[in-house]
Amino acid sequence: MKIDGVHYRSIWLSDNGWSVRIFDQRQLPWRVEIAELTSVEMAARAIKEMWTRGAPLIGATAAYGLCLGLRVDASDAALETNYKILLATRPTAVNLRWALDRMKGAVKALQGTERVKAAYQCAAAICDEDVATCRSIGEHGVELIEVLARGAAGRTLHILTHCNAGWLATVDYGTALAPIYLAHDRGVPVHVWVDETRPRNQGASLTAFELAQHGVPHTVIADNAGGLLMQQRKVDMCIVGTDRVARNGDVCNKIGTYLKALAAHDNGVPFYIGLPMSTFDPSIARGADIPIEERSADEVTIVHGKDAQGNPASVRITDSPAGNPAFDVTPARLVTGYITEKGVATSPDQLNV
Amino acid sequence: MKIDGVHYRSIWLSDNGWSVRIFDQRQLPWRVEIAELTSVEMAARAIKEMWTRGAPLIGATAAYGLCLGLRVDASDAALETNYKILLATRPTAVNLRWALDRMKGAVKALQGTERVKAAYQCAAAICDEDVATCRSIGEHGVELIEVLARGAAGRTLHILTHCNAGWLATVDYGTALAPIYLAHDRGVPVHVWVDETRPRNQGASLTAFELAQHGVPHTVIADNAGGLLMQQRKVDMCIVGTDRVARNGDVCNKIGTYLKALAAHDNGVPFYIGLPMSTFDPSIARGADIPIEERSADEVTIVHGKDAQGNPASVRITDSPAGNPAFDVTPARLVTGYITEKGVATSPDQLNV
Repeated sequence: MKIDGVHYRSIWLSDNGWSVRIFDQRQLPWRVEIAELTSVEMAARAIKEMWTRGAPLIGATAAYGLCLGLRVDASDAALETNYKILLATRPTAVNLRWALDRMKGAVKALQGTERVKAAYQCAAAICDEDVATCRSIGEHGVELIEVLARGAAGRTLHILTHCNAGWLATVDYGTALAPIYLAHDRGVPVHVWVDETRPRNQGASLTAFELAQHGVPHTVIADNAGGLLMQQRKVDMCIVGTDRVARNGDVCNKIGTYLKALAAHDNGVPFYIGLPMSTFDPSIARGADIPIEERSADEVTIVHGKDAQGNPASVRITDSPAGNPAFDVTPARLVTGYITEKGVATSPDQLNV
Repeated sequence: MKIDGVHYRSIWLSDNGWSVRIFDQRQLPWRVEIAELTSVEMAARAIKEMWTRGAPLIGATAAYGLCLGLRVDASDAALETNYKILLATRPTAVNLRWALDRMKGAVKALQGTERVKAAYQCAAAICDEDVATCRSIGEHGVELIEVLARGAAGRTLHILTHCNAGWLATVDYGTALAPIYLAHDRGVPVHVWVDETRPRNQGASLTAFELAQHGVPHTVIADNAGGLLMQQRKVDMCIVGTDRVARNGDVCNKIGTYLKALAAHDNGVPFYIGLPMSTFDPSIARGADIPIEERSADEVTIVHGKDAQGNPASVRITDSPAGNPAFDVTPARLVTGYITEKGVATSPDQLNV
């Protein structure tokens, strides 16, 4: 997708052919800052500290992180150590493990420079496939929007999303946002309700930024507002991303997703999940078994933005203790459908997960 | 209740016997600043700009606002004009109209200084009665907490609340928080999950401040977190306040309340409303008929707090457009009970509303 009219992916190889570039997403929307990852430790830090985030992009970043590690030491021992370092960065998203396992499989039979070469090839393939996957999620999802549009007689469709599952969470296009971008590009009038997504405000800072750059009409709302908007029939559908889907279809996603799914269900609003097949985790029976990351209380008590002069600034909103669970689980019964690169399904079974 | 060990009400008459003191709640929790209201215009501004807020306290402030107006001009015409000015400040809370109507009834047969005197007497009565009412809400509500405590075998009870329905929203004690304060005072181990309550953060800035001053253990959470905490059985009950309850029991309260009520219902967590009888509005058949105030987008896009030096500061979190509906409606079917000064009921009918 584009920033100021220039096309970018969210992760790419430097001209030197080995170091890896990403956006430091902590600086968005105020500054577009590109970070150069030159070591496995730096890649791990970029994931852990959320310079980069989003389940698919975490996988891609970890894949390249393994490449950076192998470049320095291509031994089995180093491979194993770096695998563990990267896997430990974030506990909830399954794509991280998926990408790392795929990388390990691609290089395990090789040694030395052959191993390094194969690693870079595999990481590049993961990225290219993610782009194709997201494009395909978009194509399947836009059909759902077009069906709604046909029933809406030309009025603007209102789609609510939570957190950021756009191109900044993937390599390009996004998962939840891909159908919205395609609808907009095809001339379907869409407007997006963007949940701010406390505590880290990925909606207000990343989703709103993406949509603005692409020219999609949108309105940022407090996370509290979505229920009322649904009661008032101002939401035609919800689409969100996910970090892991259990075998029974329970959806683990950014904290607060469950509340929106409850409201959608209570008001008859369709609630869709946009995801690559790699986000299904058949090894987990049900959502309650997915580990929920507890992040720093500072993310709740300190809010980042810009001051009146436009410089980065932060304010503390309370001196009280704070809790910060980062994800919740939306039971499968509240999900209208899963939009994947293989098509739209009402349960994981239909996709042969 | 107390601030730094000194007892205060949230509104009181100055020593001069006519001007009115309130806390400028926009400065809390960082600065305890007392504002002196000397005119009806100033009282209206204090309500509209939320120096003071909370359904019962808005009523009390409007009552004294009418006194300040009558002091300058005790004519019927001025009374009518000032009534309208004060009524227009906030559209959602019914206590505002209730207090103004009561004031009008108390002074309409009088003229001149007699009218002014009666007005001040009525405003003082409204305040005193609110204190007694809240105390009584607390006494009825604490019984519910004590029942839970008996089943909890000494472990701490976790109570979730949204926004601020504490003593800063009333004249003293609070509505939703009154039972919690009484439980704490009686030695029942309670811990409060405090919803931050975006966009204005009344939870993080007012409820957390109140609880800290009174020594009640509490943890501030993003509004998104409550659903997960209920899924994880970490919430024993919810208690919130309300700005207006319709004849059918639908509850209008701070935006986001509905989402917590849905989650409570989905997880079998009791969901209680703490309110004075004056908050029932039998003239409104159902919640959907209650006007929902739309407030400034700046409340969403600009977050207030303190900077690293401890000075008041603000940050802008997005340049995108924002929407800011201030209230939502929780359907009566999601409410476990209404805790009033007359007792606890499962529907307004039982209270002869």
